[in-house]
Amino acid sequence: MKAAVIGATGYGGAELIRLLQQHPEATLHSFHSSSKEGESIEASYPHLQTVSGMALEAIDPEKIASETDVVFTATPSGVSSELVPELIDAGNRVIDLSGDFRLKDPKLYEQWYNKKAPDETVLQNAVYGLTEWLEADATEAQLISNPGCYPTAALLGLAPLMKQNIANPDSIIIDAKTGVSGAGKKATPVTHFTEMNDNLKIYKVFAHQHTPEIEQVLSGWNSQTGPITFSTHLVPMTRGIMTTIYAQGPDGMTAKELTDLYQESYNDSYFVRVREQGTYPSTKEVYGSNFCDLSVALDERTNRIMIVSVIDNLVKGASGQAVQNMNRMFDIEETAGLGFAPVYP
Amino acid sequence: MKAAVIGATGYGGAELIRLLQQHPEATLHSFHSSSKEGESIEASYPHLQTVSGMALEAIDPEKIASETDVVFTATPSGVSSELVPELIDAGNRVIDLSGDFRLKDPKLYEQWYNKKAPDETVLQNAVYGLTEWLEADATEAQLISNPGCYPTAALLGLAPLMKQNIANPDSIIIDAKTGVSGAGKKATPVTHFTEMNDNLKIYKVFAHQHTPEIEQVLSGWNSQTGPITFSTHLVPMTRGIMTTIYAQGPDGMTAKELTDLYQESYNDSYFVRVREQGTYPSTKEVYGSNFCDLSVALDERTNRIMIVSVIDNLVKGASGQAVQNMNRMFDIEETAGLGFAPVYP
Amino acid sequence: MKAAVIGATGYGGAELIRLLQQHPEATLHSFHSSSKEGESIEASYPHLQTVSGMALEAIDPEKIASETDVVFTATPSGVSSELVPELIDAGNRVIDLSGDFRLKDPKLYEQWYNKKAPDETVLQNAVYGLTEWLEADATEAQLISNPGCYPTAALLGLAPLMKQNIANPDSIIIDAKTGVSGAGKKATPVTHFTEMNDNLKIYKVFAHQHTPEIEQVLSGWNSQTGPITFSTHLVPMTRGIMTTIYAQGPDGMTAKELTDLYQESYNDSYFVRVREQGTYPSTKEVYGSNFCDLSVALDERTNRIMIVSVIDNLVKGASGQAVQNMNRMFDIEETAGLGFAPVYP
Amino acid sequence: MKAAVIGATGYGGAELIRLLQQHPEATLHSFHSSSKEGESIEASYPHLQTVSGMALEAIDPEKIASETDVVFTATPSGVSSELVPELIDAGNRVIDLSGDFRLKDPKLYEQWYNKKAPDETVLQNAVYGLTEWLEADATEAQLISNPGCYPTAALLGLAPLMKQNIANPDSIIIDAKTGVSGAGKKATPVTHFTEMNDNLKIYKVFAHQHTPEIEQVLSGWNSQTGPITFSTHLVPMTRGIMTTIYAQGPDGMTAKELTDLYQESYNDSYFVRVREQGTYPSTKEVYGSNFCDLSVALDERTNRIMIVSVIDNLVKGASGQAVQNMNRMFDIEETAGLGFAPVYP
Repeated sequence: MKAAVIGATGYGGAELIRLLQQHPEATLHSFHSSSKEGESIEASYPHLQTVSGMALEAIDPEKIASETDVVFTATPSGVSSELVPELIDAGNRVIDLSGDFRLKDPKLYEQWYNKKAPDETVLQNAVYGLTEWLEADATEAQLISNPGCYPTAALLGLAPLMKQNIANPDSIIIDAKTGVSGAGKKATPVTHFTEMNDNLKIYKVFAHQHTPEIEQVLSGWNSQTGPITFSTHLVPMTRGIMTTIYAQGPDGMTAKELTDLYQESYNDSYFVRVREQGTYPSTKEVYGSNFCDLSVALDERTNRIMIVSVIDNLVKGASGQAVQNMNRMFDIEETAGLGFAPVYP
Repeated sequence: MKAAVIGATGYGGAELIRLLQQHPEATLHSFHSSSKEGESIEASYPHLQTVSGMALEAIDPEKIASETDVVFTATPSGVSSELVPELIDAGNRVIDLSGDFRLKDPKLYEQWYNKKAPDETVLQNAVYGLTEWLEADATEAQLISNPGCYPTAALLGLAPLMKQNIANPDSIIIDAKTGVSGAGKKATPVTHFTEMNDNLKIYKVFAHQHTPEIEQVLSGWNSQTGPITFSTHLVPMTRGIMTTIYAQGPDGMTAKELTDLYQESYNDSYFVRVREQGTYPSTKEVYGSNFCDLSVALDERTNRIMIVSVIDNLVKGASGQAVQNMNRMFDIEETAGLGFAPVYP
Repeated sequence: MKAAVIGATGYGGAELIRLLQQHPEATLHSFHSSSKEGESIEASYPHLQTVSGMALEAIDPEKIASETDVVFTATPSGVSSELVPELIDAGNRVIDLSGDFRLKDPKLYEQWYNKKAPDETVLQNAVYGLTEWLEADATEAQLISNPGCYPTAALLGLAPLMKQNIANPDSIIIDAKTGVSGAGKKATPVTHFTEMNDNLKIYKVFAHQHTPEIEQVLSGWNSQTGPITFSTHLVPMTRGIMTTIYAQGPDGMTAKELTDLYQESYNDSYFVRVREQGTYPSTKEVYGSNFCDLSVALDERTNRIMIVSVIDNLVKGASGQAVQNMNRMFDIEETAGLGFAPVYP
Repeated sequence: MKAAVIGATGYGGAELIRLLQQHPEATLHSFHSSSKEGESIEASYPHLQTVSGMALEAIDPEKIASETDVVFTATPSGVSSELVPELIDAGNRVIDLSGDFRLKDPKLYEQWYNKKAPDETVLQNAVYGLTEWLEADATEAQLISNPGCYPTAALLGLAPLMKQNIANPDSIIIDAKTGVSGAGKKATPVTHFTEMNDNLKIYKVFAHQHTPEIEQVLSGWNSQTGPITFSTHLVPMTRGIMTTIYAQGPDGMTAKELTDLYQESYNDSYFVRVREQGTYPSTKEVYGSNFCDLSVALDERTNRIMIVSVIDNLVKGASGQAVQNMNRMFDIEETAGLGFAPVYP
């Protein structure tokens, strides 16, 4: 299977190169950039020296379609919305890592992204790629819309609870913390080392564009879901997301029953590891890997359920899940190229 | 005014030395240690070389009482409970930084600290030293019990809300994050650099001993308060606490009204700085200082109030507030020795 | 004494505000910026909220001269060269933190800074402000040129050796390591958090503009000095410089004799702390303070001397030394406003 | 091919598990620990949950020999010296990651390690495993002694220079910097997060046990080599070593000629990547990988050569090189299981 990556010079693109380079069945055929055509990838990423000898190519949808089986678009929001329909028209199968094809309601997209929504037909045909809970046959999909990093962590954490209708959706509060790579490769005053080192920041208060994405999926699982509270913090680390999720529990359920439910729910999911009751994951325990580690706890004093989920935002939260979706799309083993252990410490 | 510090080799003690050394009215008379008598403080803390030429002395309550005006006990929980009554008996005025004299209910103490509660009379006479909201005349106090680091951040954040009876106490969730110095000077596997660097951990889930301390104070402010949800995370930074506090708001209150309320509440409090509506503090903005910076926000979609408060856990969360309490105890200007700016970046 | 700060929105300027705010004899009269006139300092530095209620003012040399006793120019290289002569003409006494008035040879300046050298008369009258080794009467100086951060650490480390003619100047190699605040406040790809965190970089190889500054001073101390080797590394920390200096030693000198020499040399220098033989400083042990901590060692196997010196690059390496120079200029106690302990941990 | 790991609960052992788990030709057959027999590896390393379902076994040399083809001893110095001869006796082929079999002179070992030297015969038969410069046929070796982390970085950097007799060996100074994982998994006061974060330390001054190891190899390459100067610093990062190496150059050689020499020397070495002239590697650019990235520069003002080499201390500096040596030992492709890209950022 041959793959192309568009937008190879962002962190998502660089991570796709790392992952595809070690994939047993996919070949990284070409990578493309609208601004750096002709440059070597090593000029942007010296760590990829010798790993790939190729130069960045221009974006020619028909050429890409004729030469490859799948294309990953790791392009920014607002770029994918234009580019992906062209790729689809040219016959490509696409896995899109931007946020452009996640929100089914174009008005919500325009409100939270402040950009023009993509073509309606392409949008409605996009399969939302939370791989463990896919709601369509990926092998048939022409476009998979890869979930956001925060939604991946939060939704994997909430799925068993919501699908079993255990917690009151109105009570959900998601306190999320991310490493700084979530803010992308572009240097900004907020992410300047001296400003971020030894510092903890809260940002985009009640305005993060992943809010409606989480709500859309939760509503699909439980139609009672209204707006939820979602907050986001920047932690002085490179990779990793932790979501600490609070929800009012039902009476009469024990912590053990909750953990059992989670373990059963993910029994067949290689990439979701539910921890033993009373132990909790830290972000570094999934560093560089496609795992999502989960714990669920019950505060008996307040009858609140707390779910802790961690992922590597660039792997399970982006490029790793994209490769996992590619595996599903082409009906190969879900873990192909992704089964490696986290890098620890 | 002459001050003694007992337990000078922990982080709280070292920070007291830094603060007292630059205090305009207090003199650091002596420091004491049960285990390192005779050693210089520089052996434990090379950064204090030349700042103090004194050696650590044994703990002799009567000698300390006869030579000094006030003694800070920066001793561990379980040690203060024995030591402080002896100091009181010998006539010392004491500011205690351990948790031993905070919980008025000895049973709660024994349950959460798993240690024997201190002498009942001394305990009941201890004044809880959340300086901005003292409920007794500090100039009369023989013993001030300095608040915990998390309770300081959380309670300063909740006070205006609770005292005005704006939020439903049952709905309070405190998601707290701390720098690693909060875990003390002793090296442990959890706080080993390689385990903690670039990592985010949740710990003491539903078991942190600051939980009943927060509840005790909130109950004093609003008798409706039942148990609250309080979670604690270790962030890869040295100093700093952020508490992100969620509470269900009343109908019909605007974000601006909330911010106005907070600004009025702390108008006369030099050390509490309420941010402009829509801006939020980060922990580094109070690094090394006695400030607590606060913001309050309203999520109109869910009608939830969110309060963000930050402190330096070793200053306002421990030694700085202790000096502030000393200033109150001796009726000198509250800001004496503490009015300096944070160290930034 | 009234002081003005020009260039208050860089890290050097912000640190001057912190230091002057707690100075017992100086008053921070005004701060000035060419680009942010009218804005409050808190807009750039929220940590200074309430510490200073003033707004940034325009740069009017005559007004500044008439209202203040001394002006600190924390302006970039190439800006100070134009501005300082205007201030001098207007009668100001100036302490300049840029590199513009350090190199007495205009050609060297133009070669290493790639900018036009300043006015020759002003340049030659500038006193080089390595405070412990001033070579002119600061009380008479109209302009003090504050040393660079690396030269301060390296020269304090080399002075006893060079002045006693103990080591061969040709053999000197300075391997220097700095925290990232040395690169300034401006966000750049090199100093983006995700690129710098958990990373160690070497930069400006054989091209750092502090090289000729170090050589100029060493030549003044020992006319045999030719070019030296100086390398610079970026360490993932906010503040701090360590220079590890190697030099071929003479035969027959012991490590103890070297340490004795260093301790004698700095016996009267409050801010230079020579460590006991066999112990070595780390950068954090001077964090936030004006100290320079030093050790000297002898490798008997190779007869090489190694000197380790650490400073806080923003304090002793910039704003702290500038205040120390102000104290000398106005003949007040050298430690005024600077005698406080480092912030540790 | 079946492999066993002894000492699986240290960082070297855990990294071996990560690497062997994704090796195409080796199977991780069992891991062994003298102290944690019966425990699951996940108890020590939660990140390995599901990656390996095995429990730690006791160390039975004969059983290991009968069941596996190769055993990695990631045991501490002083333990390997006893254990390895037993394994050899039982017929195992061994790759030892401790320092016990590196120094051919038992007196040097006892002097620098302060432990009893291992059996002389086993010691002399050990092949020093600096893979790119092996001096014996690995396919014949029963014991490969894996190099130290610092020696790997320093020697790969010095080899072309020394083998061509370009630099004066007496002039070599190696200023080395390491991430904290180099100090191992055991929590100590020096490596406590709060002491090491935002800090830079120099340690084991002129006493690091890797000094004679480097000298031994250099002497083999150039018999003129006497003692060299080697210093070691702890940098606040988890992984990575940079050695900055200085040596007096010959007259008349250009920087380009030096870079050409290095590129030729390593032309056939997949894991050594020589950078283009004028560009330099940072440690993160090899993070998690088996690469050693190198640059060479010439300071024309002083005629000093500077070499910069970076490795991941746990991969090329330990477990990765051990697997590379296994590949050589069993005559399979050198890059098998190791050809993956660094994890960046």
